[in-house]
Amino acid sequence: MSERFTVVEIISAKRDKHDLSDEQIDWVVDAYTRGVIADEQMSALLMAILLNGMNSREISRWTDAMIASGEKMSWSMLDRPTVDKHSTGGVGDKITLPLAPLVAACGAAVPQLSGRGLGHTGGTLDKLESIKGWKASLSNNEMLKVIQECGAVICAAGAGLAPADKKLYALRDVTGTVEAIPLIASSIMSKKIAEGTSALVLDVKTGSGAFMSDPKDAALLARTMVDLGKRAGVSTRALVTAMDVPLGLTAGNSLEIRETLEVLAGGGPSDVVELTLLLANEMLDAVGIKPKVSPADALKNGMAMDVWRKMIKAQGGDNDAPLPVAKEKIEIKADSSGKLLTLDALKVGISAWRLGAGRQKQGEVLQLGAGIEIHAKPGDIVKTGQKILTLHSDESARFDRAKEALVGAFSIGGVDDPIKRLPLVIERIEG
Amino acid sequence: MSERFTVVEIISAKRDKHDLSDEQIDWVVDAYTRGVIADEQMSALLMAILLNGMNSREISRWTDAMIASGEKMSWSMLDRPTVDKHSTGGVGDKITLPLAPLVAACGAAVPQLSGRGLGHTGGTLDKLESIKGWKASLSNNEMLKVIQECGAVICAAGAGLAPADKKLYALRDVTGTVEAIPLIASSIMSKKIAEGTSALVLDVKTGSGAFMSDPKDAALLARTMVDLGKRAGVSTRALVTAMDVPLGLTAGNSLEIRETLEVLAGGGPSDVVELTLLLANEMLDAVGIKPKVSPADALKNGMAMDVWRKMIKAQGGDNDAPLPVAKEKIEIKADSSGKLLTLDALKVGISAWRLGAGRQKQGEVLQLGAGIEIHAKPGDIVKTGQKILTLHSDESARFDRAKEALVGAFSIGGVDDPIKRLPLVIERIEG
Repeated sequence: MSERFTVVEIISAKRDKHDLSDEQIDWVVDAYTRGVIADEQMSALLMAILLNGMNSREISRWTDAMIASGEKMSWSMLDRPTVDKHSTGGVGDKITLPLAPLVAACGAAVPQLSGRGLGHTGGTLDKLESIKGWKASLSNNEMLKVIQECGAVICAAGAGLAPADKKLYALRDVTGTVEAIPLIASSIMSKKIAEGTSALVLDVKTGSGAFMSDPKDAALLARTMVDLGKRAGVSTRALVTAMDVPLGLTAGNSLEIRETLEVLAGGGPSDVVELTLLLANEMLDAVGIKPKVSPADALKNGMAMDVWRKMIKAQGGDNDAPLPVAKEKIEIKADSSGKLLTLDALKVGISAWRLGAGRQKQGEVLQLGAGIEIHAKPGDIVKTGQKILTLHSDESARFDRAKEALVGAFSIGGVDDPIKRLPLVIERIEG
Repeated sequence: MSERFTVVEIISAKRDKHDLSDEQIDWVVDAYTRGVIADEQMSALLMAILLNGMNSREISRWTDAMIASGEKMSWSMLDRPTVDKHSTGGVGDKITLPLAPLVAACGAAVPQLSGRGLGHTGGTLDKLESIKGWKASLSNNEMLKVIQECGAVICAAGAGLAPADKKLYALRDVTGTVEAIPLIASSIMSKKIAEGTSALVLDVKTGSGAFMSDPKDAALLARTMVDLGKRAGVSTRALVTAMDVPLGLTAGNSLEIRETLEVLAGGGPSDVVELTLLLANEMLDAVGIKPKVSPADALKNGMAMDVWRKMIKAQGGDNDAPLPVAKEKIEIKADSSGKLLTLDALKVGISAWRLGAGRQKQGEVLQLGAGIEIHAKPGDIVKTGQKILTLHSDESARFDRAKEALVGAFSIGGVDDPIKRLPLVIERIEG
């Protein structure tokens, strides 16, 4: 079959700052998926897109082309509206775990397709795999069954969903072309739109531990994604939220499941509870549900926990099995007394990664018990010798490099010194 | 062996507009040549270099790294100084052919490594292969023997010379990353410096038929290459010359050999003669030779022709064999009377290419007799029905598309209308 375009003319157009036509974008995404365009050609185009940008029409068409590369799911058979949440990822960001069952408990259906961690940020599926027997991969029928039974399902995206994105993401990862807002936005939104949710709430993280450390970039990414959702008929809104300090008091797979269970039992760290409730209210509002029981009450009264246990069980998980615990641990203590002024999310994330909680390459096996417990957060008064962090790993040989990553990770000042940190919610963006 | 850098960190640095260190450049060129860096990674880096540039230190180091990837030739055994010429290529640019024997006839040694054509510009080696028996590939010993016997040799660069450039050029060709001044300059100069010439004269073409259509870009490329030569201890100078109109009266392989023979016989088109003499004087001046017989006289009195015939014979060529003639021809005539105002080099080049004189892909076999004869140049007075161009091809089916390429290729105006064209020499740049 003869091709409609040549890839060199399309690369050259973007290189020379021209807009790509709809037909060029359709062809380039399709031809790459079919293998007509070679990796070295696509990576040159991706770098040109990263440096010269795409306008909103181009981003929208690129997203549509990625959706068209695979199947599109539908939830029209459900008796309640679907709403999903996506976070761009951060250190200690376990919010999806309490949030999905909570929103289901309040009356929406939550088809939550999630990913694995890479680098210093964790992945929801990895965390859930701390639970004995829990299964991430479901067929479309199994997924439907879980959501019909429980109101929520958290599982891996099937291979049929936006395969173009899968191939592109793997290429971007090795070619320095991850950090492009058009490519990030289209990657996230192609999967979320193909997933068929009727509404979507985005949690776009910013600060040292986030992908987008600059709040301005995060807001631009959020705006770009909200626009993409709107064009595709998905009611979409976004919160830009803080990731300068780790969320909650744990970073690491089974450690974060433990914290999730505390939140679902009505307790847990205040920042995790606050963000979970904020996002739950946004999700319910997005589908027009005014719940009989408020999300705050549904956490307190065990309704959310009930959905969680049912959902875990439906995916083969043993709710009563003990969670993995790392074999070794060491403590990091305060070397002076005063107020904890900073706790750097990136440094904690990298340290947890080095302890075995994260992976360097796709497919690496994790230490499910590895990670970091946080005993003080910025604003807390600490005393010399008091525990600040506990590091967990199965191999004590990992502690040295994990400690290295923590140099300058926290600072202690006078009790009257102001703490410098981002507010939890920096911006709210609606279509 | 563990590597000193990761390629993603180097790609990201250039993407984010940082300068690359000498160590990073050495590693990246070497690791790509060794196959440690994949094509899709190098093409992303090349696009970042194209869009974000390199400073003069980076370009110089990149060039050195490409030279270091292969052998370096030496001509210290010769009893006369070596000087070489490089043209960035254009339509009808056969200057190397009369120039190399002419400069040899005037007392310098000319080790002229040349290339093949790709796209609408011709290649010196392709043109010479119109001559029955002539052999482009010589061993280093054969090359030395020809230059010792004749004073000049025109042949293909061996595989041992700057292999990194060979691999990079093939990648750039399919990834839209050809048009970057740092990459063009380092590609040309790495081969010329590795070739071991003591002096070099660059003919940087500008105008529609040239690679660099904008004279400003051409001057920047020329300056960049002159600087690279100087840093490497090669006495280098450049002329920026016109390529808005084809050079001479022929474009096509055997047609250009015929024109070359006219020039070597003391005749030929005035622009070809003028540029040949200008470059010959620059080359002789660059190595400090004040010839007993001037280049102009050496063309007139047959000295240059004698060197040519000896050189062709030494490389297996039959000076007396008839040159290939295309099987079919058609004429393009003036549709009005007046002064020929323009004759577009690019359109003529593309038309000749479509007639079979050029190739689409490396390795394609050419029609050696195909091409275009030019019967009038801008400034000439023409009459309705008078021949302007003759198109030659072995396949009459090619004429339609070749004629299409010529739409608007020339214009005829009033006899008093001014012609618009670039001066032959636009700028002269010396180190």
